[in-house]
Amino acid sequence: MTVTVAVDTTGADLGPAEVAEGAKLAASRADVRIVLFGPAAELRAVVDGVPGIGVVDAPLSIAKAPDPALAVRQNPDASIVRAIRAVSAGDADTFVVAGATGPALAAGLMNVRRAKGIHRPALALPLPTLGDPVTLVDVGANVEARPDHLVQFGFMGAALARTVLGVRRPRVALLSNGEEPTKGTADVVEVHRLLRDRLAGHPHIEWVGNVEGNDIASGRADVIVTDGFTGNVTLKVMEGVSQAVVSGVRQAATSNPRSMLGGLLLKPSLNRFKSSIDPEASGGAYLLGLRSLGVVPHGRFSREGFARAIVLAAQGHEGRVTDLIHADLEAVGALRRPPAAAARDAGAPAV
Amino acid sequence: MTVTVAVDTTGADLGPAEVAEGAKLAASRADVRIVLFGPAAELRAVVDGVPGIGVVDAPLSIAKAPDPALAVRQNPDASIVRAIRAVSAGDADTFVVAGATGPALAAGLMNVRRAKGIHRPALALPLPTLGDPVTLVDVGANVEARPDHLVQFGFMGAALARTVLGVRRPRVALLSNGEEPTKGTADVVEVHRLLRDRLAGHPHIEWVGNVEGNDIASGRADVIVTDGFTGNVTLKVMEGVSQAVVSGVRQAATSNPRSMLGGLLLKPSLNRFKSSIDPEASGGAYLLGLRSLGVVPHGRFSREGFARAIVLAAQGHEGRVTDLIHADLEAVGALRRPPAAAARDAGAPAV
Repeated sequence: MTVTVAVDTTGADLGPAEVAEGAKLAASRADVRIVLFGPAAELRAVVDGVPGIGVVDAPLSIAKAPDPALAVRQNPDASIVRAIRAVSAGDADTFVVAGATGPALAAGLMNVRRAKGIHRPALALPLPTLGDPVTLVDVGANVEARPDHLVQFGFMGAALARTVLGVRRPRVALLSNGEEPTKGTADVVEVHRLLRDRLAGHPHIEWVGNVEGNDIASGRADVIVTDGFTGNVTLKVMEGVSQAVVSGVRQAATSNPRSMLGGLLLKPSLNRFKSSIDPEASGGAYLLGLRSLGVVPHGRFSREGFARAIVLAAQGHEGRVTDLIHADLEAVGALRRPPAAAARDAGAPAV
Repeated sequence: MTVTVAVDTTGADLGPAEVAEGAKLAASRADVRIVLFGPAAELRAVVDGVPGIGVVDAPLSIAKAPDPALAVRQNPDASIVRAIRAVSAGDADTFVVAGATGPALAAGLMNVRRAKGIHRPALALPLPTLGDPVTLVDVGANVEARPDHLVQFGFMGAALARTVLGVRRPRVALLSNGEEPTKGTADVVEVHRLLRDRLAGHPHIEWVGNVEGNDIASGRADVIVTDGFTGNVTLKVMEGVSQAVVSGVRQAATSNPRSMLGGLLLKPSLNRFKSSIDPEASGGAYLLGLRSLGVVPHGRFSREGFARAIVLAAQGHEGRVTDLIHADLEAVGALRRPPAAAARDAGAPAV
């Protein structure tokens, strides 16, 4: 059955039309139905007559709202709220929200809601590296998270890697300040123990153990688990350092005539290198742990990145990523249980 | 008065003789007395007859011990323990320990001991950037730290910037996942409030507020405060990404004849860029909060880095960095008070 993707277009730096161009590309590449939410006239100018793409007029954007949860509650007509409600109403299977992580998380929690047995949804971001992408989870949905939450993040990331990124047997690791199981905060040490026990002899996930910050770019793991605070700092540090090094190389290549000639000769190879670590290739950040999958491409993406986000959202839905997370967590007893059941097992009277 | 620096030589990747070469350079550049601890024959072969440099035979190295605290307790004759004891015995003013952060911290705590009013010592690392170095504190001495500790780290970093790095009015920031004061874990939000209050209108420190991971390389602050877990991850991420980008550029520059010629022409400028972000320039990590200053140059440094560490350790001692930290903390009421005094003020009976 064809997957339907609800797409909010109003958070893109290049404007809603760029997202519409991405939708056109996606429709030409995959068997997918797309509904675009945003300023209808602008969107129709791009996609009018393209089969499989519908438009809903929802010009109000809350992508840059300072308090996303408040903005979602106060603006039921905002493009992002309407796109996500299309999913909770059953009119679409999955959603793509360009450039608005906070509102996507807030609207997703309020409307699509947490999947059964999930403590907290998380944001998983496949990071471009010289080799295959490495998925960091959580990159900011939960600034504070308990060990049980981080265990679930590991399984969420693994399910994403299998269904969307094509990793047959994902290698899952925990970010810490040393490889030894005793390294890290008390919570990190506890998560290490829990993940190790739950992944021992696992049929389709491999436990790597702790990795350090420099292992993210080295490709020792496919999925790296961390709390949303550390994950967000890590992500921003990576962006900052990459930009600094690239700008340093660019300065070097324009510092004198000899270097300029060198830079010119080197340019095609450098461009190939640059496109091999393209952040748009993986479609953006994946919102996992809700009843439906959501994808949040970065606001500064081009049509190519938005197309990838739409195609991969459909692929994740077809691969039943949400069911897979549930089944994997159930198999190792890591689902959140209703408080009454947990209390009963602990010998306390059920209330 | 000439400063005396006790130097442990046994943790350097290039061997004790390389540290001795660094000592020779340092002695030629600054008015400093140096005592080298390590295998005497090897050290004397380099520094014999050089005025101002002494050698103590202490060939036992615990630089790579898996449990540093245990190794320090069990090996009173280890080079690092003897170097640090020279400081606690008053035979030297400050210490430099090549390539052994854990043992330096353990031996420092046991022998030199915490300075009065300090909760916890911290490791401050001036990171090379395209502009002036940015000091990250803590980079790993305290995997878990309370808000009061992080407040002290801010003042420690500022004192280091003033005395050793030549920053007249250091700009101090707090690492978080967003610039707003409400961003971050509950602890980070509390540290923001405490630092803001204590630095409001401060005579020689400027409060920047929260910065994000990408601001480390951008130079918005001279000192960035974080806990040792996040600091260590940040540091390793920076190393990993720099290496990955540099190796990507190198691959690009050897991928075909045209690119190789380009790389060759560009090389002198790239080397200038590389040396402008030299990690050895700042001497290494600074152990702050003990009764004396300690410097831990990286084990893979060359003689140039060890020389810098020795000269800057002497400079920090001459600049009275330890006294400055105490005075600054006292002025804003952020010194740790004896439990009895704290309890009395809170209305509880003193015990």
